Parts: sequence; structure tokens; C-alpha cells
Amino acid sequence: MPEVTVTRRLTFNAAHRVHNPALSEAENDALFGKCNNPNWHGHNYVLEVSVTGEVSEKTGYVMDLGALKRLVNEQVVDRMDHRNLNVEVDFMRGIIPTTENIVVACWRVLEPAIRPARLTRLRLWETENNHVEYEGH
Amino acid sequence: MPEVTVTRRLTFNAAHRVHNPALSEAENDALFGKCNNPNWHGHNYVLEVSVTGEVSEKTGYVMDLGALKRLVNEQVVDRMDHRNLNVEVDFMRGIIPTTENIVVACWRVLEPAIRPARLTRLRLWETENNHVEYEGH
Amino acid sequence: MPEVTVTRRLTFNAAHRVHNPALSEAENDALFGKCNNPNWHGHNYVLEVSVTGEVSEKTGYVMDLGALKRLVNEQVVDRMDHRNLNVEVDFMRGIIPTTENIVVACWRVLEPAIRPARLTRLRLWETENNHVEYEGH
Amino acid sequence: MPEVTVTRRLTFNAAHRVHNPALSEAENDALFGKCNNPNWHGHNYVLEVSVTGEVSEKTGYVMDLGALKRLVNEQVVDRMDHRNLNVEVDFMRGIIPTTENIVVACWRVLEPAIRPARLTRLRLWETENNHVEYEGH
Amino acid sequence: MPEVTVTRRLTFNAAHRVHNPALSEAENDALFGKCNNPNWHGHNYVLEVSVTGEVSEKTGYVMDLGALKRLVNEQVVDRMDHRNLNVEVDFMRGIIPTTENIVVACWRVLEPAIRPARLTRLRLWETENNHVEYEGH
Amino acid sequence: MPEVTVTRRLTFNAAHRVHNPALSEAENDALFGKCNNPNWHGHNYVLEVSVTGEVSEKTGYVMDLGALKRLVNEQVVDRMDHRNLNVEVDFMRGIIPTTENIVVACWRVLEPAIRPARLTRLRLWETENNHVEYEGH
Repeated sequence: MPEVTVTRRLTFNAAHRVHNPALSEAENDALFGKCNNPNWHGHNYVLEVSVTGEVSEKTGYVMDLGALKRLVNEQVVDRMDHRNLNVEVDFMRGIIPTTENIVVACWRVLEPAIRPARLTRLRLWETENNHVEYEGH
Repeated sequence: MPEVTVTRRLTFNAAHRVHNPALSEAENDALFGKCNNPNWHGHNYVLEVSVTGEVSEKTGYVMDLGALKRLVNEQVVDRMDHRNLNVEVDFMRGIIPTTENIVVACWRVLEPAIRPARLTRLRLWETENNHVEYEGH
Repeated sequence: MPEVTVTRRLTFNAAHRVHNPALSEAENDALFGKCNNPNWHGHNYVLEVSVTGEVSEKTGYVMDLGALKRLVNEQVVDRMDHRNLNVEVDFMRGIIPTTENIVVACWRVLEPAIRPARLTRLRLWETENNHVEYEGH
Repeated sequence: MPEVTVTRRLTFNAAHRVHNPALSEAENDALFGKCNNPNWHGHNYVLEVSVTGEVSEKTGYVMDLGALKRLVNEQVVDRMDHRNLNVEVDFMRGIIPTTENIVVACWRVLEPAIRPARLTRLRLWETENNHVEYEGH
Repeated sequence: MPEVTVTRRLTFNAAHRVHNPALSEAENDALFGKCNNPNWHGHNYVLEVSVTGEVSEKTGYVMDLGALKRLVNEQVVDRMDHRNLNVEVDFMRGIIPTTENIVVACWRVLEPAIRPARLTRLRLWETENNHVEYEGH
Repeated sequence: MPEVTVTRRLTFNAAHRVHNPALSEAENDALFGKCNNPNWHGHNYVLEVSVTGEVSEKTGYVMDLGALKRLVNEQVVDRMDHRNLNVEVDFMRGIIPTTENIVVACWRVLEPAIRPARLTRLRLWETENNHVEYEGH
């Protein structure tokens, strides 16, 4: 049976501050500049969740994308949407909320939750000019 | 010589119904919901066709994208555009027209037709939120 | 108080056939070409609904866009989404489902339903290359 | 001489909270829901600034768009970018930072600053699904 | 009968140089900077052509968009596509090829050619950040 | 430590002509058609630069995207922006400026300049319908 990758796009809007509490104010400012603003800033994030698998002969689906959407909303999107990524998201606790760290944190929540379907890629856009990809390695 | 992947984007508009004739109405409804509507619905599909190869010293091309466009239109796009994917497309006969199955069916038509150029990826968007990829495995 | 126009974007996927039952098959074919396919085709429609009014001092809103979204979904989008525009949509009965006619039919349903808010523009995209606008005149 | 409208698109990323300090927590929650989150959320805003005027015979321009970009950045975009719209933006002081109110506040700053060029429209997107327009009335 | 505005989007790729031959090199450089490069640069232009009229009871169309597309291609797009706007486009002769001047020149060609249909707006994007509109005044 | 790929999107506008000086005019015309226009044409190019690496515990970054942007602008984008790719870009000397050849030439400049960070993919769009990818092999 052919193996196909299916991708669902979701969005959320959140506030954050790129800040490492282990460093001084001056070090944070030097490393992160305006992204370190103590009064926060925010983004319209776009998350693409990709699952790879054989196409079912019965349904023609790798996975029901409606079910995937509900699961991703429940596991990560609804917990970040209209939230502050530094202070309100339990699975981001103690993590500097860069796009890189958000995508890895989402993987760690989603990968076991999606099983037995196989999560193979997460893409996360912070702006139209910047995005990251993680494949679990 | 460096190997580059070139991609051409094409669009087509089609009607379909996600329906497995081997199942009962109730089973179809449970599996496919509103996508099973017997009166059809439709989409603006976007297809990305990727070919990989060495860059020709003579032309600077992996493949003439004008020729690729004509071939893809002839082989798959013109046969699906403004058509009903369940009843009018010969290379989709007997196949539930999910995005997964459409992309695999297109691969089976395009891969031999494009040779000796090497088809390496097809991406197909059903909506701005859902797409699939197939690499021939 | 300043008057601002607020716009909400919504999408729906539908099947249709551009066909005038008062004309012969040959006339329909001459006028509408592949859009007249008796087996239907379809689109991912994008609808933009614009409401103009004074900004409330209490809320900073012209109109709660969540309420507008629910109303537009209920009144027009949910009745067209995953439907056949020629045979299943009561407010389109007897109307050739061109983009022009769809946008006028939506206006006739939405304008009274949105009152006392003031509907000032509807935009409807059939494809990324074609759209229409109607301002109620 | 023909009159043309020229438009420059700019972006900024900011945090905000839709909150009316004159109302109780319960009223704020009822009116604004998740947009009232006391820990903030944020957006990638897109601002389109339109200036209308005669085309100069000497330059072929209505206005040098490089100069317009610098002026808009200086007057409004740089003061909102990577900022908290409720607490850090002086021209937003005392204003509930809804998209409607932001666009009107930007107009009040930009319109005199752009003169003698004529500001004729501001469009502001909060998300890909919501935007507002203001023409100064 | 309701009046609807229909819009068709077309694209072309062209080279140009923003240059006023009546001025010195130094004046051109001061006014136009890198856009004055004597070796040219270029853009993927996007043109939106809007026609307003009553919806025909027979066709449901304001105007056949296929016919509009052919006419606009013939009259302006094919004459600019893969061309140098300073030296190869007869209807641009003696005109500094700014976006403002291109849109006005296109209007002067298209408006009589489209009659009796009524051209009501041209929009022209030079980049994703800059566009102009002209309504014939 | 997890390995993440970060991508920065940049744009430039340039003129070019697809032309092989080793071939006759007739051969060039047969191979490249309107892209061979001796008076040039041009594009709004979009370049996506991807770097892969471990996420730093100190910064949460694979690489500072501001630094990546400055480096890519300096090394390739500023040297092509508002330039003629056939005659003004030193790292393109003697190379037919197809999208394939541009992306490979950019790789050869960027890959050593970005080290010790690891460049893993370049994507280059010539139009919204055509793009190429190169991964250094």
C-alpha cells in the first residue's frame, strides 16, 4: 500500500517574551533585543501537523483529518491560543518560548497522543518570514 | 553536477463525494459526514509537481517547466478540471476520491509519462488547511 | 464617533453547474462551456462580510466579530458548505449559481438578518483569480 | 492629471488584551471572552496605508513609497512593534486596543504627519480572517 | 437589477527602470535610487481588472470572465509580459514606468476596448508590499 | 538535544534573460522562447534559507535569525536586488541565470559563509507557480 503524508494547518494567537531567567537583564537584552520586551509581544502562529501512513482501503484516508484537528486542538492549540506562552502553558513550563522550543514541546505532547498514527513533521510559522520544522530527532 | 528539484504549481476545480460503495449509507455517513453528501461538493485543488535531476549545462534547466506544465495538464489536470472525480475521471475509476487517493492516482499516471525525468514528489491541497504529499513509496 | 468598516472572512466548499434551464443544451454549452458540465464541478469559496458603523465606546467594537461569524455561518455559510448550489440551497432556488448571483442572494439573506448593524459590502472569491463584490445597489 | 491611490503594506507584532477598565471583571469576560485574558495574547498585525493624489509628471509617483514607509514606521509601526498595546504605546493611552480603535488611533497620528499628501484609507488585519478599514470619517 | 463588480486577476513579469530622461543622472539617482539602475531590474506584476454592471438574467454574469481575460491579455498583459516596460511597450512610450503610470496607461487602453462593459477599477501590485489603484478620474 | 530546521524568507527584485551565449540566436529562441528576450524581463524572487542544528539551551535558538538575515542579505540578496542577473552579479558570472543556476550559485556563496551553522536547504521562487530547491548535493 502507498504511504502518504497528510498535513493539517491550524492557527493560534499568543503572547510571549524571549527571555532566559538564568541570565542577567543585560545578557537577555544583548541576546534577544526587542523580543525580550518585559511587557510581552505576540504572534499569529501557524502550525502544520503532518502524519504519515498507508492509505486505508476502506476510507481512502491515512487518518481522519477531522479527528486529527480535534486532537491537535485539544492537546496543544487550545492550550496556547489567546495565552501567554511564558506563564500559562503547562507543557512550556521552564522553556524559553522560541519557535524552536515551542515546536519541540508540541512534538513531545502530540507524538504519543496521535499514536498509533505516526507524527512525522511539525512546521511552525511565527511570522510570514520565519518558520521552523521538527521531525522528532 | 548539482541535483536540483524543480516544482510547478497547477490548479483545477472539481466536484467529488467521499463515498465507499462497498459500505452502507449509515457506515458512509458515520465515516465521512458532510463529505459524503450524495449531491456532491467541490474544491479548488492545487497540485505541485516536483521533478529532480541534474542541471543541464546547455540550458540551465533540470527540465523545461513549460513542457512539464503541458504534460501535467494533458495527463492529469485537464482530465480532472471542471469534472466530477467520482464519475468522469478514467484514472480514478473505482477509487474513493480522497486527497490521498487522488495524489497516488496522479503519481501512477504522471511517473511513467514524465520519464526519463524523475518525478520525486506530488503535493495536493484540497483546501488552504489540508494537503497531502506522496513520494512514490 | 468615527465610522469603521469591519470585515470577517469565511470559507465554504460547494458543487455547482452554471446552467440556465430556460435555454437549450447547445445554448448552455455555448454560453458556459466547461462550467456547464452536467456532472458538476466545485470550488473553495471565500466570503468576506463587511459591516460599517460607529465604534462603541464601551467595547471598542463596531460589532462583535464572533457574533457576526455565528450569524453568517447560520444564515448562509452552513447552508452552502459541502452542498450543491443548484439543488440543495433554498435561498438559491431558481437562480443560476454564478458568483454574481450567489453574492446577491447572500446579501438578500444577510442584510435583514444583520440589522440593526449595517451590511455594506460582500466579496466572494470563486478562485484565486476571480471574485465579485456587491454593495446592495 | 489622473488621481491614483498608492498603498504600502507594513507589519508589526504586538501583545494586547481587549479590556475596558471601566467595567467589572465579569462584564469584561462576558463581552470579550478569551480576548480579555489578563496575561495577554498577541498578533502579527498587517497595516495597509493608502495615499491618494495626482501623479507627478517629474517622478511618475503620487508619493515616494520609500519616504512613506519611513514616515509610517517612525510615526506608528516602530512604536507598536514588539510592544504591548495596552501599556506601552503613548498614542493608544486610555483606548481599548481593538482593531477598530488601533486603526482610528493610527489615522489620528498619520493624517497630519503625512500632509500635504492625502491619507485616504487605512486597513488593518488582526488575523487572516479579520480586518478593519477606516477612511477618516 | 442589482449591480455587481466582477474582478479578474492576471499576472505578468517585466523589466523596467524608473528613469526620467529629462533629468540628469544625479537627479535621477537622487529621486529613484536603486530603482534607477541602468541595467534594469524587474517584477512579477499582478493586475486586477474590475468591471461593474447589472447581472444578466440570461447568464447570471456581469460579463463573461473568460472573454474579459482574453481581452485584457490581448490589450495589455501580452504586450508587457516578458518585456522591458521602458523600451518595448508601445502604449508606455515616453512614460516613466512607475506603477502609477503603468496603471493609468493600462486604463487608457482597456477602458475603450472593454466598452460597452464599464471598467471601474484597476489595481496593480509591483511587490507584495506595494500596490496602486486607479478608477479613471 | 533535538535538531530543528529554521527558515528565513527574503525577497529581491531582479532583471534577467535566459540566454546561453554559446548557442545561436535561433537555438536560444527555440530553447527559451520569451524568456530569451534581449531587452530583459524580471521577477520578484523569494528565497527561503534553511539552517539545521541543535537548539541552544542558553538561547532556545538554532541560530539567531536576525544574524542569518543580515548575513544572507550581505552575501547574496543585496548583490542581486534591483540588479541584472546576467551582467551585474559577480557570483553569477558566466552562468545562465535560470532559477536552478541561481539557487546553486547562492548555495556556493552561502554555505561557507554560514559555517559553523549548517545550511541544509535553499528554496527559490521565480513566480507563484515555479520554484526550485537545492540541498547541496
